[in-house]
Amino acid sequence: MEPSLFELWETSLDPATTKHYEGAFAQGSGYLHIRGSYEEGLLAAGQDEEYMRLPANVTIEKPRHPRSKWGTYVPGVTGNHPLLREELVNLPNPLVFRVAADGEALDMDACRIKGYSRSLCLRNGVLTREFLWDTASGAVIACRYERFVSQKRRSLIVQRMTYSVVSGKSILHFTSDIDEKVKTNGYNHFAETEKDSAGCRTQVRVKTDNNDTIWLASTALGKGIRFQETENHTLESETSLQEGESIFVLKLSAVCTSRDQEGGAGFDKLAAELALPEDSWKMLFQENQNEWESLWEQAEIQIEGDEEAQRAVNFSIYHLLRSASQTDDRIAVCAKGFAGEAYFGHFFWDTELYLLPFFLYNFPATAKNLTAFRLRTLEGAKQNARAYGYSGARYPWESSVSGSEQCPNWQYADNEVHVTADVIFGIWHYYEATGDKTFLFDAAPVFTETARYWLDRVEYRDDGSIHLNGVMGPDEYICFCNDSAYTNSMVKFALERTLEVLGMLEQERPEAYRALGVSQDFLDQVALVSEKLPVLTRDDGTILQCEGFEQFEEPHFERFWPDRSKHFGACVSQERNYRVKALKQADVLMLPYLFPAKFSEEDIRKAMAYYLPYTTHDSSLSAIIHSILFARLGDRVQAMEFFRRGLDIDLDSSAGGAAEGIHIANCGGIWQAVVFGFAGMLPAYESKTPSFSPNLPDGWKSLSFRIVCQGRKYRITIRGTQAETEEIQ
Amino acid sequence: MEPSLFELWETSLDPATTKHYEGAFAQGSGYLHIRGSYEEGLLAAGQDEEYMRLPANVTIEKPRHPRSKWGTYVPGVTGNHPLLREELVNLPNPLVFRVAADGEALDMDACRIKGYSRSLCLRNGVLTREFLWDTASGAVIACRYERFVSQKRRSLIVQRMTYSVVSGKSILHFTSDIDEKVKTNGYNHFAETEKDSAGCRTQVRVKTDNNDTIWLASTALGKGIRFQETENHTLESETSLQEGESIFVLKLSAVCTSRDQEGGAGFDKLAAELALPEDSWKMLFQENQNEWESLWEQAEIQIEGDEEAQRAVNFSIYHLLRSASQTDDRIAVCAKGFAGEAYFGHFFWDTELYLLPFFLYNFPATAKNLTAFRLRTLEGAKQNARAYGYSGARYPWESSVSGSEQCPNWQYADNEVHVTADVIFGIWHYYEATGDKTFLFDAAPVFTETARYWLDRVEYRDDGSIHLNGVMGPDEYICFCNDSAYTNSMVKFALERTLEVLGMLEQERPEAYRALGVSQDFLDQVALVSEKLPVLTRDDGTILQCEGFEQFEEPHFERFWPDRSKHFGACVSQERNYRVKALKQADVLMLPYLFPAKFSEEDIRKAMAYYLPYTTHDSSLSAIIHSILFARLGDRVQAMEFFRRGLDIDLDSSAGGAAEGIHIANCGGIWQAVVFGFAGMLPAYESKTPSFSPNLPDGWKSLSFRIVCQGRKYRITIRGTQAETEEIQ
Repeated sequence: MEPSLFELWETSLDPATTKHYEGAFAQGSGYLHIRGSYEEGLLAAGQDEEYMRLPANVTIEKPRHPRSKWGTYVPGVTGNHPLLREELVNLPNPLVFRVAADGEALDMDACRIKGYSRSLCLRNGVLTREFLWDTASGAVIACRYERFVSQKRRSLIVQRMTYSVVSGKSILHFTSDIDEKVKTNGYNHFAETEKDSAGCRTQVRVKTDNNDTIWLASTALGKGIRFQETENHTLESETSLQEGESIFVLKLSAVCTSRDQEGGAGFDKLAAELALPEDSWKMLFQENQNEWESLWEQAEIQIEGDEEAQRAVNFSIYHLLRSASQTDDRIAVCAKGFAGEAYFGHFFWDTELYLLPFFLYNFPATAKNLTAFRLRTLEGAKQNARAYGYSGARYPWESSVSGSEQCPNWQYADNEVHVTADVIFGIWHYYEATGDKTFLFDAAPVFTETARYWLDRVEYRDDGSIHLNGVMGPDEYICFCNDSAYTNSMVKFALERTLEVLGMLEQERPEAYRALGVSQDFLDQVALVSEKLPVLTRDDGTILQCEGFEQFEEPHFERFWPDRSKHFGACVSQERNYRVKALKQADVLMLPYLFPAKFSEEDIRKAMAYYLPYTTHDSSLSAIIHSILFARLGDRVQAMEFFRRGLDIDLDSSAGGAAEGIHIANCGGIWQAVVFGFAGMLPAYESKTPSFSPNLPDGWKSLSFRIVCQGRKYRITIRGTQAETEEIQ
Repeated sequence: MEPSLFELWETSLDPATTKHYEGAFAQGSGYLHIRGSYEEGLLAAGQDEEYMRLPANVTIEKPRHPRSKWGTYVPGVTGNHPLLREELVNLPNPLVFRVAADGEALDMDACRIKGYSRSLCLRNGVLTREFLWDTASGAVIACRYERFVSQKRRSLIVQRMTYSVVSGKSILHFTSDIDEKVKTNGYNHFAETEKDSAGCRTQVRVKTDNNDTIWLASTALGKGIRFQETENHTLESETSLQEGESIFVLKLSAVCTSRDQEGGAGFDKLAAELALPEDSWKMLFQENQNEWESLWEQAEIQIEGDEEAQRAVNFSIYHLLRSASQTDDRIAVCAKGFAGEAYFGHFFWDTELYLLPFFLYNFPATAKNLTAFRLRTLEGAKQNARAYGYSGARYPWESSVSGSEQCPNWQYADNEVHVTADVIFGIWHYYEATGDKTFLFDAAPVFTETARYWLDRVEYRDDGSIHLNGVMGPDEYICFCNDSAYTNSMVKFALERTLEVLGMLEQERPEAYRALGVSQDFLDQVALVSEKLPVLTRDDGTILQCEGFEQFEEPHFERFWPDRSKHFGACVSQERNYRVKALKQADVLMLPYLFPAKFSEEDIRKAMAYYLPYTTHDSSLSAIIHSILFARLGDRVQAMEFFRRGLDIDLDSSAGGAAEGIHIANCGGIWQAVVFGFAGMLPAYESKTPSFSPNLPDGWKSLSFRIVCQGRKYRITIRGTQAETEEIQ
């Protein structure tokens, strides 16, 4: 495939899009992630501003926008914010490399820069910046910055800076540093900070206010120059270049933390990792490239006939490959894909609904980590249930690393209980796609404890009916409703699967079954609730989003939402939004998306006809679901329309799409839109052998990708409405 | 009447009740308020701790409890808190007077104290503390502290400290200070602080972060001793006392602010106020006493046969007399009666519903100030309406001084819209009780602008019905409901009165009427909405709290609320609370309380039978409403039961009743329970001449009080079910 289809370009210096590209150019190895900021920073954008970020309605929140936002994240390393609770900590920035030419500090705002471009190679994760610098002293210097987070040595950042004097001459002064004065969401989470230098390394140790310790070290090497430690523990060097001369500097940085499971931690470990010769670039580059290639070999989707879609799909897959840990099951993927500080690094239902399928059908081992995260956090879910006054386990709407509720807004934390059923859905999907019954049985306590919660949470009326009231469904614009169709359907699904798992366990592992201490009363009650919980319908049989939905006030979009470039939620007060029939995102329509075999085309058409006119798609989780449903209905035009809206979410630089991080759930959704939508694959819980009903968009000559299902590997090639499935090794 | 009935006593040193008595002993003049803290403070309770107070659910909030909380408040002087928004600022504490005996600093915790007592005289607002101090040096010193905020010179605090050596001898060292290092809710609101001393005065000037400037000055005088300025701008003196010798010190402190309307501000003004001789105590005491006497002459309620009730009623009236300004219509009375920092000094519907009647029927000029506050803040209410996307004026749930919404919790701010109708109710009540038609006509824009808001806020359905959805009624345990009976009833009342006022205005002041620019369409629409807005009923005709109320889950108090000493809201999660049939306070029952003539006894009985079992009375606004209703029904036992619950709210030291300030709305409610409840007076909008249907509690031999109505003064004497009404001069 053409290399350009694997490149994301920034071709002009535009202050309005700096933050967007910092997010879009995020790099990572699953273990360590960095935002795409300039090595020298920006003079006008200090990174140590302290401020109190308040919990806000996410739809209308206006994040602080300094010109630029550095970010260095190790998933699982957190701090305690007084208002936002546990949050992913922005670590000291090891990328810092400043250069001055004849005393003039390089700054992208202040200096005369020509021919600026940046490109991220999605195939190997290397970010390259190139430009000509007209120095105040009259020289012209061609500058080239390259960097990557190694997929091979996942805690290593490799940077190469090349400076060539095109005309004139110049004395260049270099400073390599680790900036420890950074903040997270305006807050200083470092309870302890220690900065030092030793053997031409800058070393920083910080301890967060959540008791995680992080060590960082950097070294800088250049051919023919020598970096010296300074009093401030920076590394500095100077060289004089004549016209036509060049110099390159290799900077290596390594990170380790007290959470690392292997190989220990501390400065000695980092010193060993950094002990590489100055000509290591090629070797490090190649081994990183090899690792990426093996990931792409499985994950690549080839779209013949639509380069724009191809590029955007590649971009989504790149970030998915970068964001999930292949080895650590103590973390999931945070809402911003560890590329920004929105949503505080918390874990949402995105894991089960949006992210899991990509990993399930490509990298089952990584999918197992994501799913096992919920087993590991069962204790936190049990504590949440107790805190709310219930038995069993109640998964948090925004999960901390330990599974405790972190959502700073009560309406979501209290009411979006569907996440607890979504967790079961995710485990079941993992089981059906992999056949991993050992894991399923290990997860039996998650089934029984969440079932206990539901039995306690529902209302039993004197007339024998059972209800689940005071909830919020996926549509976050109705903050409080009764008998949410999505929620009740997922709870019924979860309770049915609970009975199924317990039945299998009793048969196949009677001792483990007995150890669960499940009574017949409990089983009867699970059966009763799963049977009686209602899914309400309209007169025409369409599923009703919740009790009384039809009596909600009309949203009058024509009056209140004239400017569709803004979110509806930004045009009306929350008070109006919460009482009108405006949907933030797919809600009832999540059901035919998840369970295609259970809904007829007619069902879906009727539901879409009713709900779509009310749907604002203010949530980034919405477009892609509609793309999938339209594709399944054969409406290729609408499917493509919503697909493109999904592609734009992170790529539209004019809307600042990725400024606060990557909408990683949408990236997972884009993969689903291709595979579940255009290719029409049935999920494993509906068909254990890959089954396709393709509806390729006009112009897509062919679509091909690989799938792993039940341990078998397939290469799929689709042309028109024909799918060819080939099992491979 | 016996003096003891006008005394509130604290007779032991108990750390658990220190904060309660600081609130209960609050003193004030309408202009200036101070909490009942010790002059020397407590060594163990520094007052400069900084912390971030978060907006919390008020029912379950656990305020920071240092051992003690100083408070000095000038209503209207505010600061901007990053989370709590505009808040009443705790000013530098001018009470500070420290004494050391032979080098041992007096401290109520650390020293050997015997015979401790404090008493507040409710008749003249003088707080007295007495005790014997066994000093470490072997002396016994009788100490006596007296102080008051002058009702005559309302910005003056007068303190007298008397020390008598009972045995042994002692060298006493005195320090008089103004402590400027205080915080408000843990926050420093002083953008500027200047401390100085001049002519034996300590002077402090602070400027809040909301641009209010406050000057404070203190002087200390003693017979035979001389206070000297120190480097720290404190005033110090020393004296040696032999057995049997005494000394007294007079400390005078004055305050003025940039908000003062008369007499200017600044240190020169304060110096003039403080230029009084050392023997001024008697004169200052007497003039303060005289002012208080004239207030009590009107306000006194005499209960023959129930000393406990008499004392408690006197306590409530004392705080009502203290808290409202007789001269300033730019402020109302904050929820804690300017005796603490809970609710941030904001103004609530308490003004109209709970406080206004006491002032209306005793001090119409003060009532006019409270009512005029809403006219003055109309512009703020219009801005609120715009911010929410509506026409007209929307009064804030928690009002700033300028009328903008300050509530930090969205569910109250967004949904408790009934306050906008309550404001109209208050204006109308003022008009009916005073006959002040000039004021009513001045308020015409409040009627029209709030009506415009309602016309825009309601929903017009295709079937011609009109609804008011997504609101919270007085019962704050149902956070989101449709067609709240209380809300809709008050809106209908407000719209009906709007038509009435406009009709009168058109007749009597046609030019003013035309200036309002009211169209016939507008009038028709007001009439339509007031007619069509539904008040739903149950099958038996009882008013239904809101749409679907009967389908809410049973609260199962027997299971979830075993310990009735706690609030229900503290025993269950907010999530459960919001979806069950638990009432925080009277809701539907507010209607027969407000409009006794509109409800039959049978109506009230049925409504009470339905709602009372669901009512938790977690709100301090609840008990007293139920007392009134039971009294009107002739159920004297239940009426007395709820009356005593009301009396306990601020007086139960074991529950820390007044720790965070006085529940001033409940104080107003206690007056209403006596006058509208036991005396059975009809409000002026139901009877323009005082009309009584008494139901005195068992043991109350007689009840007498004065009333002003429509400019006429009456003395009422009630025995049994007989009321004697005598018009007086």
